Amino acid sequence: MTVAAVEAANAELYNAFETADLDRMAALWDDDDGVVCVHPGWPMLRGRSQVLRSWAVIMANTSYIQFFLTDVSVELLGELAVVTCEESILTGVGGGGDDAGPGLGDAARVVATNVFRLRDGEWRLRLHHGSPVISPSGPAS
Amino acid sequence: MTVAAVEAANAELYNAFETADLDRMAALWDDDDGVVCVHPGWPMLRGRSQVLRSWAVIMANTSYIQFFLTDVSVELLGELAVVTCEESILTGVGGGGDDAGPGLGDAARVVATNVFRLRDGEWRLRLHHGSPVISPSGPAS
Repeated sequence: MTVAAVEAANAELYNAFETADLDRMAALWDDDDGVVCVHPGWPMLRGRSQVLRSWAVIMANTSYIQFFLTDVSVELLGELAVVTCEESILTGVGGGGDDAGPGLGDAARVVATNVFRLRDGEWRLRLHHGSPVISPSGPAS
Repeated sequence: MTVAAVEAANAELYNAFETADLDRMAALWDDDDGVVCVHPGWPMLRGRSQVLRSWAVIMANTSYIQFFLTDVSVELLGELAVVTCEESILTGVGGGGDDAGPGLGDAARVVATNVFRLRDGEWRLRLHHGSPVISPSGPAS
């Protein structure tokens, strides 16, 4: 089923990151320079080489990361799929915080938009936009 | 030309916000409940009523806002269009800061993904995802 295939491609993004597997990450991203990536709090990165370089840097600086995806929604139209979801993230950056333990640092909440395009039967990632949830219910009104 | 029509729809989002015109904003957003909106730092809002209510609250709390869009890129495939751009924002929230002047508060940098869908000849907004640029060149490596 097509939606299931898109969901699997979406899960692959997080699996590749969790296992720090740059080859899997490179295989998931589409092959041309129209790809776009926004890591939480970062500027917009464009083009395959810049995007993959950023993942290499992030993976090298992340000792542990685990994602729990919720509220995953897929919108499919022809050969494009737009996935929106919420990422609850357990992470350890660098490998040491104030407290001891397994190097776990923060629990963070990120919302993400991921756009996939069907290429030769495979859903390839064209855009990842993650952003930090800073104000849980928006500004006070 | 189709790309120009998408760019015009994208500009309309910012024009509607600048003029605090909720009717124009409501006309731009697609008519069904699949719409998604992420304001910078906010959680993900889903559904037309929740999204439009958020714009009403934001407009009511914004005394002045002006957008300068740069790096606008359009990806078109069939009846979907994915626009990515950078927003440089001059804003005044509430109407008074530390300094005097016309009530201008902050200059902020936001990156945005906007997804449009063609409906009866009109490009309607289905997703807006804006996120704050906090670290200009990503984390130190």
